[in-house]
Amino acid sequence: MRLLVTWKGFRDADLGLIKETTGATVLTGFTEEEALKWAPEADVILGGYLSAQVLASAVNCRWMQSPFAGVEKILQAEWGNPRMVLTNGRGVFGPNIAEHVLGFILSFNRGLHLARDNQAQRIWQPRLPIRFGELTDSTVGILGFGDIGSQVAKRLSGFDCEVVGFRQHPTESPYAQAVYGLDRFAECLGDLDYLVCALPETETTIGLVNRDHLRQLPRHAIVINVGRGSLIPSEDLILALQEGWIAGAGLDVTDPEPLPADSPLWGMPNVIITPHNSGSTTFLKQRALQIFFANWKHFCQTGLPQVNVVRRDLGY
Amino acid sequence: MRLLVTWKGFRDADLGLIKETTGATVLTGFTEEEALKWAPEADVILGGYLSAQVLASAVNCRWMQSPFAGVEKILQAEWGNPRMVLTNGRGVFGPNIAEHVLGFILSFNRGLHLARDNQAQRIWQPRLPIRFGELTDSTVGILGFGDIGSQVAKRLSGFDCEVVGFRQHPTESPYAQAVYGLDRFAECLGDLDYLVCALPETETTIGLVNRDHLRQLPRHAIVINVGRGSLIPSEDLILALQEGWIAGAGLDVTDPEPLPADSPLWGMPNVIITPHNSGSTTFLKQRALQIFFANWKHFCQTGLPQVNVVRRDLGY
Repeated sequence: MRLLVTWKGFRDADLGLIKETTGATVLTGFTEEEALKWAPEADVILGGYLSAQVLASAVNCRWMQSPFAGVEKILQAEWGNPRMVLTNGRGVFGPNIAEHVLGFILSFNRGLHLARDNQAQRIWQPRLPIRFGELTDSTVGILGFGDIGSQVAKRLSGFDCEVVGFRQHPTESPYAQAVYGLDRFAECLGDLDYLVCALPETETTIGLVNRDHLRQLPRHAIVINVGRGSLIPSEDLILALQEGWIAGAGLDVTDPEPLPADSPLWGMPNVIITPHNSGSTTFLKQRALQIFFANWKHFCQTGLPQVNVVRRDLGY
Repeated sequence: MRLLVTWKGFRDADLGLIKETTGATVLTGFTEEEALKWAPEADVILGGYLSAQVLASAVNCRWMQSPFAGVEKILQAEWGNPRMVLTNGRGVFGPNIAEHVLGFILSFNRGLHLARDNQAQRIWQPRLPIRFGELTDSTVGILGFGDIGSQVAKRLSGFDCEVVGFRQHPTESPYAQAVYGLDRFAECLGDLDYLVCALPETETTIGLVNRDHLRQLPRHAIVINVGRGSLIPSEDLILALQEGWIAGAGLDVTDPEPLPADSPLWGMPNVIITPHNSGSTTFLKQRALQIFFANWKHFCQTGLPQVNVVRRDLGY
């Protein structure tokens, strides 16, 4: 079995572990040139974002494991083997992205972003021009209640708040008062104190949250986006923040990325921006390899990976 | 019954509610002059930090309700009526200070403080010079496991971490794996990934956490202080941060306060400073009055307030 490893995050020690655990012939494609060279030979690819050319060259690849959760670019490309099975990193990023979301919310509640600005100038100013919010007795809506959304809900369980989830295929959760279909999202907006967006980018989700929705939120509401920037049209988000339809936004994703230096979002006092790094975690390799090895074992036995299989019809 | 209200946070509407609920003659002492004038008349005082003169003049005061938790300055002063009973605002600040603590921890884990610095310069830089930490599988020590400490522990319950509490009089908690006496604090330091300090200032606690303790923490440990700055000698804390004995500190309290502009703490990349405002909450009045009214009812019936009675021997 020939395994092509293209994710640059792996070091020699990781490659050693991969060789030992899989028993495969491990090929490395850390550069475009290397990846193009080995792609036609690979039975399996373990990697992140590949170029369209590499994916088109992988004519013998039966299974590709991405360490990441969002795979829209891979799905949009033409595959050398159209019957290739794609698995993603669902579950790898839930805990750290959930901590990122809670970090955003608590920064707004406690004015930590403004205190940081004051710290840079050595200013001790206890009174800040904000309402000190609190999760207590509030309602948090989570749009996209998959792994990340439910990890957020789990972490909110100690904060005396209500959680309402929205997802394409609702299932019950011990951490949410209710999980509704995406079609019920709009009618609930007026009840939300926080709106956390953790949706993948699909045809359905691009522009899903627009100015009409933002206007329906209470004026003290905080919007967090850790999914994809395309969910909320930038001009709508900027308008909502400028007009005070919402109290603030914590954005780990923007449209486009990187956020251009002339975007007004950078300088708004009620916006906290992080550079699409909520997925960064020191546990990444450990968790990604755990999924990969479980899938590898199943693939060797049955010809198919076991977990995190991406459905092309759904886009995730 | 004459009730002297000295806390400046109360507005006319609050005073109206206080009059209506208590049926007392309400005197207001929002300035030192006014407070001095009415102090000798007052049967009860509802207020925050009073000057030593006002306290000394309150010769007929049988009960004073402070809306705040830390009352060391009131205890240090001479009271006009030595048998006055003092009650504090325990329970008012637990939820918001707990959110502040979690905000500190998650800012460090996710590098939100550094992303904020980059935002000010419109820099999109996903890789930060930090280890992206995670509460998952970590151990959080909480020094001072009263109302605030246990509210922190409760909010940590969804983060897959262990919590160990330390307090003078240990009691079991559903949110901690164990609660030990303060005497066992030192021996546990090596196991802590986060140390949260929420102790009041008493003779026992001044300088309780010193350089020897800080050196025993793991080098990746984060120290949070939301109690009193005097707990950790400033020179020891600065040394620990400069020498890398600990990875960072989130400080809502410092010694002295305000933190002088020339303190090296302001400019350290691994320090987040907030200006002793973790207690700020929009729920302050509502919660403080709830405690006051419960105590008032009991005081009228029995001559003594019911909850949050401060023990002079303990200092809290």
